[in-house]
Amino acid sequence: MATLRKKMVMMKMRNRLARQCLGEILGTFVLLLFGCAAAAQVKTSRQAKGQYLSVNMSFAVGVMSAMYLCLGVSGAHLNPAVSLSFCVLGHLPWRKLLPYSLSQVLGAYLASAVVYVMYYDAIMEYSGGVLTSVGPNETASIFATHPAEGLSLQTKFFDQVVGTAALLLCILPLNDKRNKPVPAALLPPIVATVILGIAMSMSYNCGGAINPARDLGPRLFMLTAGWGTEVFTCFDYFFWVPLVAPMVGAPLGCLLYFVFINWHLPDPDPDSDVKCQPEILAAVNMKIEFYLAFTYIHS
Amino acid sequence: MATLRKKMVMMKMRNRLARQCLGEILGTFVLLLFGCAAAAQVKTSRQAKGQYLSVNMSFAVGVMSAMYLCLGVSGAHLNPAVSLSFCVLGHLPWRKLLPYSLSQVLGAYLASAVVYVMYYDAIMEYSGGVLTSVGPNETASIFATHPAEGLSLQTKFFDQVVGTAALLLCILPLNDKRNKPVPAALLPPIVATVILGIAMSMSYNCGGAINPARDLGPRLFMLTAGWGTEVFTCFDYFFWVPLVAPMVGAPLGCLLYFVFINWHLPDPDPDSDVKCQPEILAAVNMKIEFYLAFTYIHS
Amino acid sequence: MATLRKKMVMMKMRNRLARQCLGEILGTFVLLLFGCAAAAQVKTSRQAKGQYLSVNMSFAVGVMSAMYLCLGVSGAHLNPAVSLSFCVLGHLPWRKLLPYSLSQVLGAYLASAVVYVMYYDAIMEYSGGVLTSVGPNETASIFATHPAEGLSLQTKFFDQVVGTAALLLCILPLNDKRNKPVPAALLPPIVATVILGIAMSMSYNCGGAINPARDLGPRLFMLTAGWGTEVFTCFDYFFWVPLVAPMVGAPLGCLLYFVFINWHLPDPDPDSDVKCQPEILAAVNMKIEFYLAFTYIHS
Amino acid sequence: MATLRKKMVMMKMRNRLARQCLGEILGTFVLLLFGCAAAAQVKTSRQAKGQYLSVNMSFAVGVMSAMYLCLGVSGAHLNPAVSLSFCVLGHLPWRKLLPYSLSQVLGAYLASAVVYVMYYDAIMEYSGGVLTSVGPNETASIFATHPAEGLSLQTKFFDQVVGTAALLLCILPLNDKRNKPVPAALLPPIVATVILGIAMSMSYNCGGAINPARDLGPRLFMLTAGWGTEVFTCFDYFFWVPLVAPMVGAPLGCLLYFVFINWHLPDPDPDSDVKCQPEILAAVNMKIEFYLAFTYIHS
Repeated sequence: MATLRKKMVMMKMRNRLARQCLGEILGTFVLLLFGCAAAAQVKTSRQAKGQYLSVNMSFAVGVMSAMYLCLGVSGAHLNPAVSLSFCVLGHLPWRKLLPYSLSQVLGAYLASAVVYVMYYDAIMEYSGGVLTSVGPNETASIFATHPAEGLSLQTKFFDQVVGTAALLLCILPLNDKRNKPVPAALLPPIVATVILGIAMSMSYNCGGAINPARDLGPRLFMLTAGWGTEVFTCFDYFFWVPLVAPMVGAPLGCLLYFVFINWHLPDPDPDSDVKCQPEILAAVNMKIEFYLAFTYIHS
Repeated sequence: MATLRKKMVMMKMRNRLARQCLGEILGTFVLLLFGCAAAAQVKTSRQAKGQYLSVNMSFAVGVMSAMYLCLGVSGAHLNPAVSLSFCVLGHLPWRKLLPYSLSQVLGAYLASAVVYVMYYDAIMEYSGGVLTSVGPNETASIFATHPAEGLSLQTKFFDQVVGTAALLLCILPLNDKRNKPVPAALLPPIVATVILGIAMSMSYNCGGAINPARDLGPRLFMLTAGWGTEVFTCFDYFFWVPLVAPMVGAPLGCLLYFVFINWHLPDPDPDSDVKCQPEILAAVNMKIEFYLAFTYIHS
Repeated sequence: MATLRKKMVMMKMRNRLARQCLGEILGTFVLLLFGCAAAAQVKTSRQAKGQYLSVNMSFAVGVMSAMYLCLGVSGAHLNPAVSLSFCVLGHLPWRKLLPYSLSQVLGAYLASAVVYVMYYDAIMEYSGGVLTSVGPNETASIFATHPAEGLSLQTKFFDQVVGTAALLLCILPLNDKRNKPVPAALLPPIVATVILGIAMSMSYNCGGAINPARDLGPRLFMLTAGWGTEVFTCFDYFFWVPLVAPMVGAPLGCLLYFVFINWHLPDPDPDSDVKCQPEILAAVNMKIEFYLAFTYIHS
Repeated sequence: MATLRKKMVMMKMRNRLARQCLGEILGTFVLLLFGCAAAAQVKTSRQAKGQYLSVNMSFAVGVMSAMYLCLGVSGAHLNPAVSLSFCVLGHLPWRKLLPYSLSQVLGAYLASAVVYVMYYDAIMEYSGGVLTSVGPNETASIFATHPAEGLSLQTKFFDQVVGTAALLLCILPLNDKRNKPVPAALLPPIVATVILGIAMSMSYNCGGAINPARDLGPRLFMLTAGWGTEVFTCFDYFFWVPLVAPMVGAPLGCLLYFVFINWHLPDPDPDSDVKCQPEILAAVNMKIEFYLAFTYIHS
């Protein structure tokens, strides 16, 4: 293992962006692995081995695990709408938006493939061997989000805009040093709790994607795995709503947070902000070292 | 974004109260957005997309998110009964009670409006297009709290008094330096857990409002959105109970906490209390700086 | 409020034990308030407003809230079996065992009374006005624990012994400096999670009291409130099992923990153990103060 | 107690491995005690006292409690697949793999025995007194994991590989100083949440053992307790899948984590890494002591 590691480290990519994309791929993979596998478990077991709430909870665990996994590498956006927001806020260069987004879609695609293989027998048994996107035996909703019956287009769009705006509005303060942030090491479970809340309250209309990659990746997988083009045409070409609406909602959530909250926060105390405690301690240590040397020389 | 920010900062309100009210509006908005949207999801999906427990949990997530959002701006009261308690305890000037309370009602009003638009199609489908407060197709309970059948007035009132007293009794120690407080950054999830507990145990009688704004804001919205004056007259003018009883229960909870617990807590150790660690370190640092200068001059 | 406080402080009891008992009364009151109210909500709503899991969760929230409430005053035992264990371990003087236990029973009694008044109408509606301990309309299981049908006495006793032993075995390491303890400020939610686990896994046989006060207090209340002596005679005098078995199980759990874990833990590093960080800092500070004075005098 | 302790300490095993095995035995015992007792409660109460979700949650609480219990003694592997991974990663000597694994199996065996005695009456009532592994009254699934109907062998194997790989992939970053680790004291609840996620999403096919000891221990117990050899022959000798597949999946998860994440993490800042804060403080303290002595001598 150690020798293999050395080789890998030597040939490891210099390109920071490529490493970040790797992180986003694996992170989104884990997020969808938990989420879609739970959806498969609940649907194919006909609720015997779970319920709607456990799918919501499993997506939340997926977010938490994915964040711990790739926070140190890529910042754990896991969502093109989040990456877009961070571009708007200046935390991510615009040129990285497309690579991040494609990585997220790829991660979601790969997770769908693993869940499909894992639940192949159960999906075949449930669907009677015919993979469809509509009807009583449809299995496409395991992977992608489906809208409820009889919704107007504007309701669907509004639903995804509000959901994603709520997401950004709720997660931005968690990491805002001028507000009351969560300890960095506990950010993942708190963000996961926000995701759980959104899934429990804003997922009836459209399935609560609030994430273009979470919906597009699985659809692309289904296209290649035998569900056919129906996965894009079903529900009157619904697929574009979770692609576009979150990209509108996320910056809107940021705007709300900055206009109503961030710009009105009291300025942080410069003393406590400029120097953090370990730095003070290191400074103390250095000065004492220096002083001991100084007095030794002059004694 | 940056230039817009500068303009906004320059024209930003000097008035601290106005900023605090903004915070309370957005905070209560988020709380009710999660809560009422979950109630809408569970009711209009006829429990297919959630259950009573997920509404309770969603309200709790709303509390957590709202607290992280506006704790740094307004203290995140989110509830006139909490604001009243803080006035009684001297943490909030009495002149701010009304602005805070009105802001909370306004936030709840706005959240109801967003949830109404978001779930418009589902509400229309569920109610058959007739918005009513009573009967099998009523949809008013999505927004406001309704009492159970056959309760006497004193039971309803007592229920809301006990619920709000329990709330204050359980959250006051969480932030009491003389007791064993929660780390400040983790206050929101712990308070949310208390809210979840109250919702799971004290919401059958009256829906567990324990918050005048949480109930009045949505009722006012429904009045303007087509439910009619029935939202105030239904259940024998029940609406005044969640308005008045929490204002009695909250100070009662404070009184219980102070009489039975706080006044009997051991006095905090003055040494560890007066100077916190970063202050000691800063002092150490300063003295060494001074001493180095002093010895340098005299050397 | 401030003047009232001063008077109260002046007349406040000198007796530390009395203050501790006050804490235990209020703590056990809060624990049972959440727990029994949830049981009442679920039973009288016929599972429309909750489920078995939400009763388990509500008891856990009650434990968390009660611990934050009285940890600083009384140590938050909330359970005579826990108090007994702490006597055995030498953390509580034996003479305090009886006062602690009686306080806990009193707190549970008072909570039952409040829940009874709060759910009076619902209990009357559910029971048809006849308060009984057995039969389809029994309401005694809201307050006290009832065994499942057809259990032998040894199974009941063993169930309560194992449950209480598991409780102590799982909570002792949480506060053991030689093991990997939880941060003190987060002890309550972790202990609450353990309680939730026990309630979800070991409550079918006997209702999972694992706490003599949690069962006896409500039974005494029911005796005085109209259920009659049947609350003690029902299920073949079952009431003594949750009174006696936890007092056996709790020391057994302690013994297991000490024999299998604690005595084999590596000895803590004396340097990091004897002096905690704030103490080092205070020492540093003091010495510099002294040294500055010393050099000033001799300069 | 104190004198008994002294004797025990004096005769306590010098052998560190034996102590670690004791820790693993008790830890796996606690894990299975919570998990299997919850399975027994839900099954024998015919879902009246719990649901599939509460079994998942109870296993998670078991993991959390077991980790707090034996983290300080043995590292709380609780799973031969985790021990194997730590051997591969060089955190555990290979010679300890077998003792660790056997201890985990023994702990699982003992927990099954306690759960069997605890739920003896309920199991007898449910099964009609005949202990079987298949059929409508089977009770073997309380203890061991059973596959769903009609799965191919490769699906079962793949399911266990993916589940265990997901486990390692999600828990390795939690304790990786180069990534964004969880505070050590909060590792148990976060790991438990990951376990909950896996149980909610990847347990339909094969019951989600992802742990050879969790499955083998209870099977061995059932063999000795009257279920007969059927516990090993049932479902076409399924028992070997949760024995072997996790040993493949766990190293695979490690490999994924290191290749995709760990090797691309930025190198940690050497200054903040080499010296932790308490060490700096101790150094400061020592130097001041020395300097005071030095100046005193020369004054």
